[in-house]
Amino acid sequence: MANSTDGGPLAPAGGGAVTGLLHPGEMGAAVGSVLRASGRMVLWASSGRSAESRRRAELAGLEDVGTAEELSRRVDVIVSVCPPHAALDVARSVAGFQGIFVDANAVSPTTARELAAVITAGGGRFVDGGIIGPPPAADNPTRLYLSGTDAALIIGLFNETPVAARVVSDEIGAASALKMVYAAWSKGTAALLLGIRAVARAEGVEPTLLDEWRDSLPELPGRSLGAARSASTKGWRWVAEMEEIASTFAAAGLPDGFHRAAAWIFDRSPRLERGQADEQTLDEVLALLPQPGHRPEAH
Amino acid sequence: MANSTDGGPLAPAGGGAVTGLLHPGEMGAAVGSVLRASGRMVLWASSGRSAESRRRAELAGLEDVGTAEELSRRVDVIVSVCPPHAALDVARSVAGFQGIFVDANAVSPTTARELAAVITAGGGRFVDGGIIGPPPAADNPTRLYLSGTDAALIIGLFNETPVAARVVSDEIGAASALKMVYAAWSKGTAALLLGIRAVARAEGVEPTLLDEWRDSLPELPGRSLGAARSASTKGWRWVAEMEEIASTFAAAGLPDGFHRAAAWIFDRSPRLERGQADEQTLDEVLALLPQPGHRPEAH
Repeated sequence: MANSTDGGPLAPAGGGAVTGLLHPGEMGAAVGSVLRASGRMVLWASSGRSAESRRRAELAGLEDVGTAEELSRRVDVIVSVCPPHAALDVARSVAGFQGIFVDANAVSPTTARELAAVITAGGGRFVDGGIIGPPPAADNPTRLYLSGTDAALIIGLFNETPVAARVVSDEIGAASALKMVYAAWSKGTAALLLGIRAVARAEGVEPTLLDEWRDSLPELPGRSLGAARSASTKGWRWVAEMEEIASTFAAAGLPDGFHRAAAWIFDRSPRLERGQADEQTLDEVLALLPQPGHRPEAH
Repeated sequence: MANSTDGGPLAPAGGGAVTGLLHPGEMGAAVGSVLRASGRMVLWASSGRSAESRRRAELAGLEDVGTAEELSRRVDVIVSVCPPHAALDVARSVAGFQGIFVDANAVSPTTARELAAVITAGGGRFVDGGIIGPPPAADNPTRLYLSGTDAALIIGLFNETPVAARVVSDEIGAASALKMVYAAWSKGTAALLLGIRAVARAEGVEPTLLDEWRDSLPELPGRSLGAARSASTKGWRWVAEMEEIASTFAAAGLPDGFHRAAAWIFDRSPRLERGQADEQTLDEVLALLPQPGHRPEAH
C-alpha cells in the first residue's frame, strides 16, 4: 500500500491516497475520471477486461497495473463499481487486500454482508456503498452513500469532486438498502411502464391509453419512452439488480413479486447502442416481450 | 321496460331512458346523482344493501324499487358499479333483463366477456365499461369508457353531465382492458410505494431515503402518504382489482407479479374512515405489513 490506513483517518491522506477501481464500466470510469480531475492517482487492472473498458479507462486517465492482485498491492482504497451479478467475483479477486474495500454496487444488504465477509476474512476493511444518480457531472452531483464503521474515512477521497459522499450509518448493509429502495421505484416503475404498454398494445387500447394519459398523467407517455431507452441500453445489467431488490423485499417480509416481474421484463430487453429514446426504441423493446397466449412462468 | 331499446338508438330516448343502478357505492351514488341532477329518472334496489348504501342512495335522489328483479323490469339501462369481486354476482342478480346492461367495473377483459355471456344468455344486451378518475364533479369530469356494438347507445345518457362517456371500440373487453392498464399504474405504484416505505423502515434507512427523494424525486414523500390514505380507505376493494389486473397481464403473456404483490399489500391494509393523509395513516398501514424475518408466500 502507498499509505498506511491503520488507526488514523484517511481524510488527511484522502488527497494523497491511491485508489484502485474494479471494474470500471460507464459509472466506474466516470468516478475514476473525477478523482483524476481532482489530482488523485487512480489505478485499474486491465487483465480480462474488454477493449471497450480499456478505451474508457484510458480516456479517464486511469493507470493500468495489469492484474487485480497487483492493484491490491499498490493502493490504499479499492472501489468496486460493476454490474451486481459480478460483485462477489470482483471482491474475491482481491481477497487478501489489506486496505479499505468500498463496494459501491447495487446489491441487497445480505449480499453486502457476504462481500464484507470475503474482504475482512483476508484482513481488509469493508465499507458498504450505494451510488444514486447518473454518472457525476459538475451540475448534477452523483450521490455516493456509505455505511460501516470505516465509512467516514472515504468521504475525504471525494472532496472537491462532483461525487457527494454521505455516511448513512455504521452498519454494513445500510448503504445497500438505501440503493435498493431507491432503485425499487426508479427502475421498478420503468419495467412496470413497459409491461403496461405491452398489455395495452396486445389488447388494442394503446392509443386510447395514451390519450387518457396525456389528459390525466401527462408525464407517462414520455416516461415510457425513457423506460424503453434505458431498458434497451442498460436492462441487461438491471436484471441482477431487480433480483437483489426482490431479495431485499423478501428479507423484510414484503412480497418480491414487483421486482421479479421487473427482472423478467429487463431480461427480455434488446441490447442497443442507441442513446436516443423514440417510438421505434419502444417498438423494439415491446417486440421482444411475449405475445398474447404465451404463459410466462409464475412471478 | 319504460322504453323499448330495440332497433333505434337510445340517444333520442337517452334523456328519457330510465336507468337502474346496481350497487351504488361511493362512485355509483355519485354517477346516479349527476344523472338525477340532469333530470333523468334513476332507480336502485335496496334489498340486502347496507344502511350506508341506503343513506347514499337517498342523498343522491335515487328511487328505491326494492329488489334487483323489480328493477330489471322497470328500467331501460342497468349500470353496475360495484367492487370487482362482486361484479359477476351483480350481473347474475338480473339475468333475464331485456335492456342494455353496462358493466362499469374494474375487471379483466376475460371477466367482462364472462359478464357479457351471463347477460346475453338471458336476452339482454351488454356494454363493457371502465370508469377512470374520481367521482364526477363539474370541474373534473369522470371518464366512462365504453365498448361493444351497443356502446354508442349509452353516450346520450350522460349528455350534459360531468361524466365524459367515450366509445373505445366495438369489442367487449376493450373498455375493461383500458381500465386495467390505467389502474395498473395508478394503484400498482401506490402499492409499490407502500412496500418501499416498509422495506426502508425495516432496514433503518427511511429518513435518508426521504432526504434523497426530496432532492431527486420530490413528489414521492407526498405520494407515499397519499398511497397510505387510499390503501387505508379503499384498499379492501382494490385487492380484487389488482388480481384482475394480474390476470390481464398474464393473459397478454406478461408477468403477473407486480399486481399479485400489490394485491398482497392492499389485502393487509387497515380499514379506516379518515380521509386525511398524514404520517400517522402511513404508520397504521405499515404496522399491518409483516415485519423482518416473516416470509411471505411466493408472489
